[in-house]
Amino acid sequence: MRIGIYGYGNLGRGVELCAAQNADTQTVGVFTRRDPAKVKTLLGTPVFPAQKTSDFKGKIDVMIICGGSATDLPILTPALAKDFCVVDSFDTHPKIPAHFAAVDEAAKAGGNLALISAGWDPGMFSLARVFAESILPAGKTYTFWGKGVSQGHSDAVRRIEGVIDARQYTIPKEEALLAVRSGKNPELTARDKHLRECFVVAAEGADLERIENEIKTMTDYFADYDTIVHFISAEEMKRDHSELPHGGFVIRSGKTGTDACHNNTVEYRLALDSNPEFTAGVLIAAARAVYKKHLRGETGCITLFDVAPADLSPKPGEVLRKEML
Amino acid sequence: MRIGIYGYGNLGRGVELCAAQNADTQTVGVFTRRDPAKVKTLLGTPVFPAQKTSDFKGKIDVMIICGGSATDLPILTPALAKDFCVVDSFDTHPKIPAHFAAVDEAAKAGGNLALISAGWDPGMFSLARVFAESILPAGKTYTFWGKGVSQGHSDAVRRIEGVIDARQYTIPKEEALLAVRSGKNPELTARDKHLRECFVVAAEGADLERIENEIKTMTDYFADYDTIVHFISAEEMKRDHSELPHGGFVIRSGKTGTDACHNNTVEYRLALDSNPEFTAGVLIAAARAVYKKHLRGETGCITLFDVAPADLSPKPGEVLRKEML
Repeated sequence: MRIGIYGYGNLGRGVELCAAQNADTQTVGVFTRRDPAKVKTLLGTPVFPAQKTSDFKGKIDVMIICGGSATDLPILTPALAKDFCVVDSFDTHPKIPAHFAAVDEAAKAGGNLALISAGWDPGMFSLARVFAESILPAGKTYTFWGKGVSQGHSDAVRRIEGVIDARQYTIPKEEALLAVRSGKNPELTARDKHLRECFVVAAEGADLERIENEIKTMTDYFADYDTIVHFISAEEMKRDHSELPHGGFVIRSGKTGTDACHNNTVEYRLALDSNPEFTAGVLIAAARAVYKKHLRGETGCITLFDVAPADLSPKPGEVLRKEML
Repeated sequence: MRIGIYGYGNLGRGVELCAAQNADTQTVGVFTRRDPAKVKTLLGTPVFPAQKTSDFKGKIDVMIICGGSATDLPILTPALAKDFCVVDSFDTHPKIPAHFAAVDEAAKAGGNLALISAGWDPGMFSLARVFAESILPAGKTYTFWGKGVSQGHSDAVRRIEGVIDARQYTIPKEEALLAVRSGKNPELTARDKHLRECFVVAAEGADLERIENEIKTMTDYFADYDTIVHFISAEEMKRDHSELPHGGFVIRSGKTGTDACHNNTVEYRLALDSNPEFTAGVLIAAARAVYKKHLRGETGCITLFDVAPADLSPKPGEVLRKEML
């Protein structure tokens, strides 16, 4: 499978590294909207200008689009799906149906297959939710995120006057996790489920009390949560908070048996040192499925819900049945 | 979807109860090799003699076969796949390829679709292994079973002279779980991973020391493990050990990043009050997928590896994308 990487930020670099771990995957090139001469790839993959992608039609089996969901992917994925089979990690949940429709139309017009919203949430967590609900229809599903860095919340803190840098960790509350695992199916508010912890580098002489108050009362982001704020130095930020860990839990408890006497709990958990590198792993596996399914004649837009697990694996069916079943 | 239940033990009863939780599923009948007049179903489902199944050809969409893997399913599944789409929970791992081949031939001859080895291991745990390995190619996967009742090990203890009844619990060792979760990818022996705990009702005057020694030194079953033996009364057995809980963990740690500097851990965990009722839930979801795929013209034998998650769910694709992605 020959892949292209469109966009070379944290996610694009993760895809380049992960592709090298997969014997069936060859990276043809990185495509960038920056000056290619100024982009140095981790593994020496050649870099091409973004406007040259169409020169690679027929030379790339799947283009993996590593852009942001807010403004990049709604434009890029439909545009590239005309020329290539594509995979993206579009993660703006409420806009998924509209994105799906736009990509479906473009991919069908180009005779290509596109898979959107691959990653861990949406992605592997979505799969965990569908599996658990399909098996245990009488129950309740909970998703917890963290401990990990939330990019959106970190950005929101950075926009406050007097803040130079900020990192926000989303942390699931242990007592909520325990209540859910026990099968009690509790009603939980946002505040019950997650804690928000912020590490902030403030400008010299800034009013720390005002900054802390602005964070804690920020609607949509912090007001509905218990929030802890720490002021640290730029050196501490660099030393202790330069990684992008994340993860979380999908837990469903379902009742079975006469009078629903039995509780059964399914839990899917991720603990990731690197959010973008794990996401890259999902993108490569999704690209493999797209490649196989397109060879069988499929076109249009799909998600991981439409992919048989065997298509994600490089192993043939008889090996999977013998070794993994 | 109209289902039939072939066999009415713990698993068959679980399927009857679970079918009632699914609005799209109607149970046509239970088929038994016992005298139907003597089988009373939990929900009043009609009972028919096993030799009458062919009268129901065309009236049942999927026959769910609830028999044992040792002697029942190798005969039953190929035989029934000639007349019906079928699902079974065949779980003798080394014999899966042979069973698959026999069922594939029979199902193709009958124009039917068969799904074998659905349940939790093989089944949901197999899926967890394939997903995790496909996403994190550089890593190691561990499966732990328990805490739960192992039927095979309980039976082995019951065969010892002087034993009236026995229940064996398989228990994962906490320190092994912690080592695996930490990403150290340790080498673990059978003894490192699991503890075996036996509750035994002995005949009056039996030599307890001999029984305990026979258990602990039994090859294949106990000799390679740390085993704890408790002697209890028949009343205690009935009061404390009449349920069939089980569960376990599939954990994979994979390295990503430059110089494999990041560890990412995926964990899939089941904690089941009722092993047969959860297995029944998987069988119903698998039957739904078989029904949908057969309507699309598929025949032969498949496993859960070949099923797109959307086919397990009663919800249509656009609802899944809107609500679950």
